[in-house]
Amino acid sequence: MCVFNPAATLFQGKRLLLIRVAEKAIAERGCIASPVLDLEAGEVRIHQFRLDDPKLNYTDPRFFTYKHQIYLTSLSHFRVATSEDGQHFSIGAEPVLYPETAYETYGIEDARITQLEGRYYINYSAVSERGVVTVLAETADFKSFQRRGIIFAPDNKDCALFPEKINGRYQVLHRPAVVHAGQASIWTASSENLLDWGHHRFVAGPRSAHWDCERIGAGSPPIKTSQGWLTFYHGCNHQSRYCLGLLLLDLEKPWQVIRRSRQPFFSPEASYECEGFMPEVVFHNGTIDLGQGQLEIYYGATDRVTCAARVSLDDLLASLES
Amino acid sequence: MCVFNPAATLFQGKRLLLIRVAEKAIAERGCIASPVLDLEAGEVRIHQFRLDDPKLNYTDPRFFTYKHQIYLTSLSHFRVATSEDGQHFSIGAEPVLYPETAYETYGIEDARITQLEGRYYINYSAVSERGVVTVLAETADFKSFQRRGIIFAPDNKDCALFPEKINGRYQVLHRPAVVHAGQASIWTASSENLLDWGHHRFVAGPRSAHWDCERIGAGSPPIKTSQGWLTFYHGCNHQSRYCLGLLLLDLEKPWQVIRRSRQPFFSPEASYECEGFMPEVVFHNGTIDLGQGQLEIYYGATDRVTCAARVSLDDLLASLES
Repeated sequence: MCVFNPAATLFQGKRLLLIRVAEKAIAERGCIASPVLDLEAGEVRIHQFRLDDPKLNYTDPRFFTYKHQIYLTSLSHFRVATSEDGQHFSIGAEPVLYPETAYETYGIEDARITQLEGRYYINYSAVSERGVVTVLAETADFKSFQRRGIIFAPDNKDCALFPEKINGRYQVLHRPAVVHAGQASIWTASSENLLDWGHHRFVAGPRSAHWDCERIGAGSPPIKTSQGWLTFYHGCNHQSRYCLGLLLLDLEKPWQVIRRSRQPFFSPEASYECEGFMPEVVFHNGTIDLGQGQLEIYYGATDRVTCAARVSLDDLLASLES
Repeated sequence: MCVFNPAATLFQGKRLLLIRVAEKAIAERGCIASPVLDLEAGEVRIHQFRLDDPKLNYTDPRFFTYKHQIYLTSLSHFRVATSEDGQHFSIGAEPVLYPETAYETYGIEDARITQLEGRYYINYSAVSERGVVTVLAETADFKSFQRRGIIFAPDNKDCALFPEKINGRYQVLHRPAVVHAGQASIWTASSENLLDWGHHRFVAGPRSAHWDCERIGAGSPPIKTSQGWLTFYHGCNHQSRYCLGLLLLDLEKPWQVIRRSRQPFFSPEASYECEGFMPEVVFHNGTIDLGQGQLEIYYGATDRVTCAARVSLDDLLASLES
């Protein structure tokens, strides 16, 4: 149905994407379908709901509710895509990570890859009827993955693990959910062992009357520069138009924002970014650093397709000068 | 304004409560007021809003919104109350813990006390415009307290720290917030050092068509029995009627529920539990174990007053047999 929101890294000299593949079940006539992992049966079960059932509430293409329980219209997993040139990709015939725990019955979504101390760490959003948690996994070869467990309780997504320790501790950006006061914002936490996290601090939130007034979340892992940690983030307005912005975070105190994009550095403009499953959405969680200050940005458009853009580190930093 | 939701412990042979005191600011004529800690000024500032301002939205006695930003109608802090008999209390003239950080500008609420390895650990909800986080503090004398930091990112409240390690790790019950799927439920996490938390697992959630169908959260720290960890929790229905129930959790795997109250063991019945600031609310976060299987339960009623009840451990465990 949709192939989008890839994590990205260089691996064995090639570009490697960990792409989110969303599969939709075929609905019976007059019905809407939801694919859900059935843990006992060990397979995905297709739930069918009649569209004329008054207990069904369906207003968003991504999900619906039935008797106040939420169901997704698709189930996501991850596949690997590799490329020599960043334009022509070979996509794996089989999933490399597929939902398999009680916390993943509605799917796994939006991975980030961080190369850290010679290993590849993956974090992703695991979705179930219990909420959205962040899972940490590890791989050496992008063929077999080891789940290390839930690192943030629900709801938490948009985690970006820094590629090195700061002040002797691992550091991450994360996006917890608020229901009482505040808005969906970027926080940071640190850890001694990558599994237990503490020292939570607020980093940045939405800005009223801006393009990022509704909610924000971190993109791919921050890139170290002499000026600070260059950090990609997505933000949306009250109409759910998603654009990309930048934060420059202090090298030693990454909860301190040195500079922030006034305007997005990247916005939906092309037809495939403006029209599709979720119109007017660009969402970015994968960057490849080609060296010499050249970056490739991989991103999802309208929650439907995977796209790429090239940009120089200098241009990004310069965009923060104003 | 209100004195409620106390934490409780035995200290130096006396009952000691850490009570939440909610102070309301005097509103100017035709206005509603919100007391907020002003960090730069180092004092509480009273914000006044005209009741006839169309940008004001005021439907709940606890809070209102102005231009989509939330404000509380009171600011809470903690005082110590001590008693020889559990009926006559001497209340401290001064706060022992008062809002003082950027995460506490809207107040500090609903403490729990856990005696662990010879120390007293306090956790509480810190509220600000950034959300509700859980803070861990420590004290030896209930006069001076040391804040140890935020242990759970927003929104998270209703944390109950177990009084001993389980499988070599500290263990806690917590209540994260969900906005996408699921309902407010009890989760557990564990830690090596009390500050960094991981290994999150779901414990129990609301039950449809029950008294606890809307949301649940843990009460005072679990009590070890030969049958399991006896765990108090509060739950409410869709009308926000709060009652108290029990979980019996596995001694070694505290995310496994052995038994659970079908009916509440305690419900609003007395006039001071049914009528008040928030009608039909009993909320419990303090238990004193008097020995010989006798417990004193301290609880808040209608978010307004502090009450006590006596019960035997055997009766509580027997209530779970059915």
